[in-house]
Amino acid sequence: MRIDIITVVPDLLTSPFSHSIMKRAQSRGLLEVHTHNLRDHTPYKQGQVDDYQFGGGAGMVMMPEPLAILLDKLKEERNYDEVIYMTPDGERFEQKIANRLSIKENLIIICGHYKGIDERIREHYVTKEISIGDYVLSGGELAAAVVVDAIGRLIPGVLNDETSALFDSFQDGLLAPPVYTRPADFRGWKVPEILLCGDPKKIDVWRHEEALKRTAERRPELLEDHEE
Amino acid sequence: MRIDIITVVPDLLTSPFSHSIMKRAQSRGLLEVHTHNLRDHTPYKQGQVDDYQFGGGAGMVMMPEPLAILLDKLKEERNYDEVIYMTPDGERFEQKIANRLSIKENLIIICGHYKGIDERIREHYVTKEISIGDYVLSGGELAAAVVVDAIGRLIPGVLNDETSALFDSFQDGLLAPPVYTRPADFRGWKVPEILLCGDPKKIDVWRHEEALKRTAERRPELLEDHEE
Repeated sequence: MRIDIITVVPDLLTSPFSHSIMKRAQSRGLLEVHTHNLRDHTPYKQGQVDDYQFGGGAGMVMMPEPLAILLDKLKEERNYDEVIYMTPDGERFEQKIANRLSIKENLIIICGHYKGIDERIREHYVTKEISIGDYVLSGGELAAAVVVDAIGRLIPGVLNDETSALFDSFQDGLLAPPVYTRPADFRGWKVPEILLCGDPKKIDVWRHEEALKRTAERRPELLEDHEE
Repeated sequence: MRIDIITVVPDLLTSPFSHSIMKRAQSRGLLEVHTHNLRDHTPYKQGQVDDYQFGGGAGMVMMPEPLAILLDKLKEERNYDEVIYMTPDGERFEQKIANRLSIKENLIIICGHYKGIDERIREHYVTKEISIGDYVLSGGELAAAVVVDAIGRLIPGVLNDETSALFDSFQDGLLAPPVYTRPADFRGWKVPEILLCGDPKKIDVWRHEEALKRTAERRPELLEDHEE
């Protein structure tokens, strides 16, 4: 999979993609992340990419032309499955969307900054608008990093133990059960005895019950969609 | 505000906090972010911080002792308002929570990795569990960066134009209206004429209508909580 990220702060994205799982995905040749500095593609002087908004008001808006130039250039080079714009009023990102995007070949992600991008780019170029949650960030860069991470770890071969992602929260519609590791007794706080019983079947039942219990307590609405 | 982040991949967090708004918040002395490498605080050999989970199954679990040692040390040094654990089964992060956290003094954020942290730390140390959305990431680091960014930009003096954050999506319970900037005519795609009329009152009315329309189309459930 290839992901092209368009940003005005490319340096912000350096470390999230150079460590841990994302580094492994790239070094194994399973994921290519290309970061493009929008300022390198503007026809305006001094790298200008934003301007005051029409109608007045606080906050700058990202101009349509630099985005259109870079998007045209990328789209000439290859076919893209989606041109994604990270924005708080987009479709809410969920595991289902991550699953679906993880089987695509080429994605563009536009990171907004300031008050966002000119509406005309949204109308004429963007094919999918994604929000990672109901909160406002200083830019779309962290949101893009979140999406790339959530997608990237699902590409087969990225996680060492492929069964691992299947048991994550949300993959079966339930929150994950509690987990414990050594020591069995820490400061008098003990691991539930059932986990030490050595009977995988009993443990499976316990975990499923705990997952149901936790989901019912914390996110009861998930149970409505859940199939036993 | 001071935020202490506990992580096993401290390098992953370098660039998000060294650029743009988060850099400015720190250089103005309004925000201190301290990243702690959990491996520096483990009593186990070779920096061990995780182990197999009791009861079997894929994925490692972060051991209770290194976390307890580091948390005890930090809590001796100062009072913390919250010990936050980033986890997909936590309370969903929203702008309201960002607003509330932005007036705190000292926060600890624990980034989980692998299958998460030992449940006993959640029971005995963690005071608040936060999820940035219904999806799974390879670790809590990006989620922590998202929370710090969302909180940090709300600290007075961080954004240059303080009125700016007040007009963001969600702050008035509505999605933001579309924004436009120069040129007024780009490839034949024109800015709505009302934005060029020069009457701030008319423009305000239009923007409010567009915000309502967009919210009704994309997130109708937000309108139920919205007060005119």
